[in-house]
Amino acid sequence: MNQPASPSSLNKPLPATLLEALRALLGDRVSTSDSVRAHHGKDESAHPPAVPDAVVFVQSTEEVAAIVKLCASHSVPVIAFGAGSSVEGHVLAIHGGIALDLTRMNEVLKVNVDDLDVTVQAGVTRKQLNQHLHDSGLFFPIDPGANATLGGMAATRASGTNAVRYGTMRENVMGLTVVLADGRVIRTGGRARKSAAGYDLTRLFVGSEGTLGIITEVTLRLHPQPEAVSAAICMFSGVDDAVRTVIETIQMGVPIARCELLDALTIKAVNRYSKLTLREVPMLLCEFHGTPASVEEQAKTVQAIASEHGGLDFEWSTRQEERTRLWQARHDAYLACMQLRPGNRGVATDVCVPVSRLAECIAATNEDIAKASMPIALFGHVGDGNFHLVILVEPANETDLAEAEAINHRVVMRALAMGGTSTGEHGIGIGTLDFLDAEHGDAVTVMRAIKQALDPGNLFNPGKVIRL
Amino acid sequence: MNQPASPSSLNKPLPATLLEALRALLGDRVSTSDSVRAHHGKDESAHPPAVPDAVVFVQSTEEVAAIVKLCASHSVPVIAFGAGSSVEGHVLAIHGGIALDLTRMNEVLKVNVDDLDVTVQAGVTRKQLNQHLHDSGLFFPIDPGANATLGGMAATRASGTNAVRYGTMRENVMGLTVVLADGRVIRTGGRARKSAAGYDLTRLFVGSEGTLGIITEVTLRLHPQPEAVSAAICMFSGVDDAVRTVIETIQMGVPIARCELLDALTIKAVNRYSKLTLREVPMLLCEFHGTPASVEEQAKTVQAIASEHGGLDFEWSTRQEERTRLWQARHDAYLACMQLRPGNRGVATDVCVPVSRLAECIAATNEDIAKASMPIALFGHVGDGNFHLVILVEPANETDLAEAEAINHRVVMRALAMGGTSTGEHGIGIGTLDFLDAEHGDAVTVMRAIKQALDPGNLFNPGKVIRL
Repeated sequence: MNQPASPSSLNKPLPATLLEALRALLGDRVSTSDSVRAHHGKDESAHPPAVPDAVVFVQSTEEVAAIVKLCASHSVPVIAFGAGSSVEGHVLAIHGGIALDLTRMNEVLKVNVDDLDVTVQAGVTRKQLNQHLHDSGLFFPIDPGANATLGGMAATRASGTNAVRYGTMRENVMGLTVVLADGRVIRTGGRARKSAAGYDLTRLFVGSEGTLGIITEVTLRLHPQPEAVSAAICMFSGVDDAVRTVIETIQMGVPIARCELLDALTIKAVNRYSKLTLREVPMLLCEFHGTPASVEEQAKTVQAIASEHGGLDFEWSTRQEERTRLWQARHDAYLACMQLRPGNRGVATDVCVPVSRLAECIAATNEDIAKASMPIALFGHVGDGNFHLVILVEPANETDLAEAEAINHRVVMRALAMGGTSTGEHGIGIGTLDFLDAEHGDAVTVMRAIKQALDPGNLFNPGKVIRL
Repeated sequence: MNQPASPSSLNKPLPATLLEALRALLGDRVSTSDSVRAHHGKDESAHPPAVPDAVVFVQSTEEVAAIVKLCASHSVPVIAFGAGSSVEGHVLAIHGGIALDLTRMNEVLKVNVDDLDVTVQAGVTRKQLNQHLHDSGLFFPIDPGANATLGGMAATRASGTNAVRYGTMRENVMGLTVVLADGRVIRTGGRARKSAAGYDLTRLFVGSEGTLGIITEVTLRLHPQPEAVSAAICMFSGVDDAVRTVIETIQMGVPIARCELLDALTIKAVNRYSKLTLREVPMLLCEFHGTPASVEEQAKTVQAIASEHGGLDFEWSTRQEERTRLWQARHDAYLACMQLRPGNRGVATDVCVPVSRLAECIAATNEDIAKASMPIALFGHVGDGNFHLVILVEPANETDLAEAEAINHRVVMRALAMGGTSTGEHGIGIGTLDFLDAEHGDAVTVMRAIKQALDPGNLFNPGKVIRL
């Protein structure tokens, strides 16, 4: 984040006619200032910044459509930009172009309480939405940690801690407004809870990472705020026992809402960062949603399973304050880990494997961690088989970067060999591009055909998701 | 079903070189007999039969790939055929070609109990799968009524009575093996519970109705068999009260597993067909899955809501025998309705609206029913906002067919105006083609672009889903 943007990109001028047309359309909502461009040329990853040639701040779908038409006629790339919280380089302007900042499109357009759905502009963040919903009895569960925009979350198929119960953006986006590469605006999906009418364009744009169209509005499924919520923590002498507890919990059909594993190093980081005094051993952090009776029943079932696997210090609480404190600590785990060596950046891995292979996968990964020259924290959404490493690197240290890359490579190849995926929730961006062929083989040619059919000029976020 | 196949189609010969090549590949698993072709030229809809020029019975993905290559080189359409239980004309060979019968690819390839998933060949039926899973502690919930093949269910994005709790095929297909139009074989998705790696091809092929590729294998998500199951029925003096009970149940977050409405005429038909003695008034039939305690809690909550809306005779039972009898009657509702006028065919509508509009939508539909000249039964998956009409028509009676079409048109346009969809679960086929533009507008051009990119020769199931 502290690296300078590459000069080649900083110095590349936009066609003057395009800039004039953008200014005529948007006035001072077009910026070519170094600071604004620098802010839009970086994300939360360890990838070096790549700044756009200009930034536009849009206020409506119509403006997006007009900008896309202008950029298409000048063959200038368009990169959608939300909160900038990607960890895979999604927003980096590696081929220059315009960063299209959607954060001013931040209106909650329509809450349909009776139908448990909401339509928002793409720049609304998940926290903003849940604040808006506070008194409605409903909430939006998907929670990737960062306060991302809902457009960005849709574009990257985000998930996070609640996915084990509520699914990912895939399951919770009902429809989208999308600006196509020729500037036309389409509406995908709808507000019916299910539909068999035509190809599933909604799911095609969810996870397309801004490469097939610009998402400007999102219709989301909401869920009733649970009557009762409780959190439980349980300590284990080894990661393996924690993971086996999770696997049995899932197999028993316990409708657990969240189920997170933090390894000993992560706990150490979290203790420091969030001023907690948790025992520095592997920990499961669980959350249960339901009626008071069912929440109690779920917690007791998990406690029984945990104790069969040597779980210690099982504590559960329905007090909101304590829950909030624990979950905030979990959310801050990524930042906490980065503070283990101040000034370092984190290379985050994101594999997800079938849960039956999770214990084995984590055990082998722990051997990689033991051999590494830098601190590596492990935590994640183990109920889904998804876990992260945060590999701490000095951003300018080539040896560090090469070692981190080699570890990531080993972790991903192991996950693929186990029937898993290179990325459970972070997306491909530029970080996981190299693994797409290994994971999907000839299916990548179909993805490429779709990209070429929908965006023949490679206007949208070029260089991301698939190589053309 | 009793109509003769159209002579033009019956008489159209295949290129001799293609037929020879198919026979060289498959031996006696190629048929051009009238009876075999007639069987593959009809479905459960009221659409007139359209028979294929030949039928091939495949045993492997490799055979499908070889057949697709042969048919591509002769520009002869390929139509995937499973159980033939479509109600929208999906399998009708309206442009001739080869019916590719997948029912002999009926092997359950791999059950992963620990991961709650299974991979099956496309010709495995849902009942066969659940029989296979019987002792595993797991089950596959999606249940469209008919004993459809899982390949066909994936291709039509089927759902049914359990969708309110477990989702549709969209949420429960994890991956597919697909033969593309050039004969290449791809594997989409994977066995990880979530992935953000590339475009969501799985969801694109789910619901593509055989027009983008031939699905030969399906990896499905399984669910733990619930510890306890109970069923409840409740009678209402009007449909409106029943619907309001359902809406409140959903909004309360009760994790109801099934929630079906049957109107008075449907009950009458079901009583006759299944030899029951239910009171002939609107009825809700619900099912609850969970622990014994949570099942009881759910049933009590629904009972309380129902009684606020004038619900009568609320009965609930955990006895399997009684449950099975009731649900079998529900499953047979379509057949039961057709027996109201023996020899008639049913024109089935399939709209799905946001639940807040469901009561209004059904009330207006009941006015249509009151004006109609033929019996029309109404039932459906009201927890999803999805309901069916079965409009009884004499197959050869043009007046009947025109009236049914006019009613369907009104019902669909009403649903669309309410933010709903023309088809919740039956698919487009040829029956709902006319409504796709009305529902999806310019998004249909994107569907068309995808069809043309993936199947440029219009080889797969031509004339279905979208007009080219």
